[in-house]
Amino acid sequence: MSFSGPVVALAGGVGGAKLAVGLAHALPEGALTVVVNTADDLVLHGLHISPDIDTVMYNLAGMSNPETGWGIDGDRTSALDLLGRYGGPTWFRLGDQDLATHIRRTQRLAEGARLTEVTRELAASLGIKANILPMTDSSIATRVKTPEGELEFQDYFVARGTRPSVCGVRFQGADEARATPEVIRAFDEASAIVFCPSNPIVSIGPILAVPDIHERLRSASAPRVGVSPIIGGAALRGPAAEMLKSLGHEVSALGVARILKDVLDGFVVDTEDEALVSSIKETGLRSIALPSIMSDLDSKKKLAQGVLAFASSVQKMT
Amino acid sequence: MSFSGPVVALAGGVGGAKLAVGLAHALPEGALTVVVNTADDLVLHGLHISPDIDTVMYNLAGMSNPETGWGIDGDRTSALDLLGRYGGPTWFRLGDQDLATHIRRTQRLAEGARLTEVTRELAASLGIKANILPMTDSSIATRVKTPEGELEFQDYFVARGTRPSVCGVRFQGADEARATPEVIRAFDEASAIVFCPSNPIVSIGPILAVPDIHERLRSASAPRVGVSPIIGGAALRGPAAEMLKSLGHEVSALGVARILKDVLDGFVVDTEDEALVSSIKETGLRSIALPSIMSDLDSKKKLAQGVLAFASSVQKMT
Repeated sequence: MSFSGPVVALAGGVGGAKLAVGLAHALPEGALTVVVNTADDLVLHGLHISPDIDTVMYNLAGMSNPETGWGIDGDRTSALDLLGRYGGPTWFRLGDQDLATHIRRTQRLAEGARLTEVTRELAASLGIKANILPMTDSSIATRVKTPEGELEFQDYFVARGTRPSVCGVRFQGADEARATPEVIRAFDEASAIVFCPSNPIVSIGPILAVPDIHERLRSASAPRVGVSPIIGGAALRGPAAEMLKSLGHEVSALGVARILKDVLDGFVVDTEDEALVSSIKETGLRSIALPSIMSDLDSKKKLAQGVLAFASSVQKMT
Repeated sequence: MSFSGPVVALAGGVGGAKLAVGLAHALPEGALTVVVNTADDLVLHGLHISPDIDTVMYNLAGMSNPETGWGIDGDRTSALDLLGRYGGPTWFRLGDQDLATHIRRTQRLAEGARLTEVTRELAASLGIKANILPMTDSSIATRVKTPEGELEFQDYFVARGTRPSVCGVRFQGADEARATPEVIRAFDEASAIVFCPSNPIVSIGPILAVPDIHERLRSASAPRVGVSPIIGGAALRGPAAEMLKSLGHEVSALGVARILKDVLDGFVVDTEDEALVSSIKETGLRSIALPSIMSDLDSKKKLAQGVLAFASSVQKMT
């Protein structure tokens, strides 16, 4: 019932990273490719930071901080404390080990390597068997429109703790961005495409904003299934609920399904939202309910297996 | 008997940093300027590292590792360990906090700041009242000729642990290097110039190799006094003794005095070498013997006071 062939997962932050871990365990070694949002990337202290790539990478390497879901377990901030003393910004909490990742990435990019190549090198060094692909090597920056003006994503997300209400979101550079050969090949070879339970606006949104990727997702022959990041009208973490509301969407799995329906065949809601399955089906998608709270490796793996089985059934139906 | 006016000290690594601490305590706040060797600077992990500046800075800030004399007390290497896992070099032991210094320096240099400006900012952030000046903002690199070929200084010094014998030393870029306005002004205003007990070949040597500085040292009206880094025929630390020997110099305070005599008026030897004072006087220098082993703050301060009193007496004689 489940896939052994290549599976592509689209992921943003912590929720996406968790399902990626489940998928990596549910699939044969090397069968998983995770295409990761890079529109949250930022340069701080002169270092290129790719927060979503790092979250996926540290989770897949089994080294992520289990409390936060991001950063490295047990990491300290002694370098950041001194950077702060030197007048540098400290609102973005960079751990000492985490800095090594940014230092290495920055060095390799300065040497002319593509972000895709650097990410492959870093992941391989950490023993990760899944393929982690930045959604693009082009520069895309999420800009959040708020009553205080337009903010850089991390300024909105971390520095201001998602407090400003969101009137709009745009992805600067997206129109000119190109999918990489690696991303195109992954989609072309995929036997299933999984949208992880990441924020549909600022995690999945930027991936869809890359024209080549959007086109491939719309025309994909492989089954495309998503998992709702909204459970019972709230997000497990992050500003997805507030953001959906202020942008005029219904704050529910149904609301997310409506946003993504043009690039999906099926949508998984949490068992708590089983009542929404029939409404989602009315949008033209297939839908099932599964336990989707990923509190440990077992629940990540079970959800991954359920999602893959669902994708398999969607495939049979088309 | 001692100075209150501006004093310039020339320093390389740990020995120089120790006397700089003594001088900073012996002089009024802000009266000390330390001109520091930068020919050992290197780029590792894409970061600009200035080992001698950092050693002087951490010592003056009271945060240096008391065991080694360099690095930051209690610093760990968790970032370096991960950089090693990523394939980066680990032979140069960069601590987590220490990395903050290199990250900040690299960022500011990339923004167009001069090394002199960056050093002033870093030192001010650490509460240092003395002026720390890189000997130049130009790029100078010490190259060590050995039977294995010509090596970069840190390759010879750290990676190979000073094991290769030294057939020659050159300072790449020195001929084109310019003294900064800050260094020139410091020499012009100095009422005494102190050569710290640093390696005469690879710590003091590069400073003298900057044509503007050499010219100013030769023609200085202020008394110029040095402290021998060689005690009883050996260096307290580092390869000075082996290097002097293999380059054909006498391995003694007298040998060092002969190398530096054109830019010195007086030379301080350790009390253990009191017998050399008369021979040093024969080279045309004034000379005295003082306890010069700096094991604690008190001995650093006492040596500094003795050196300043000696400089004062030299001034009276000329």
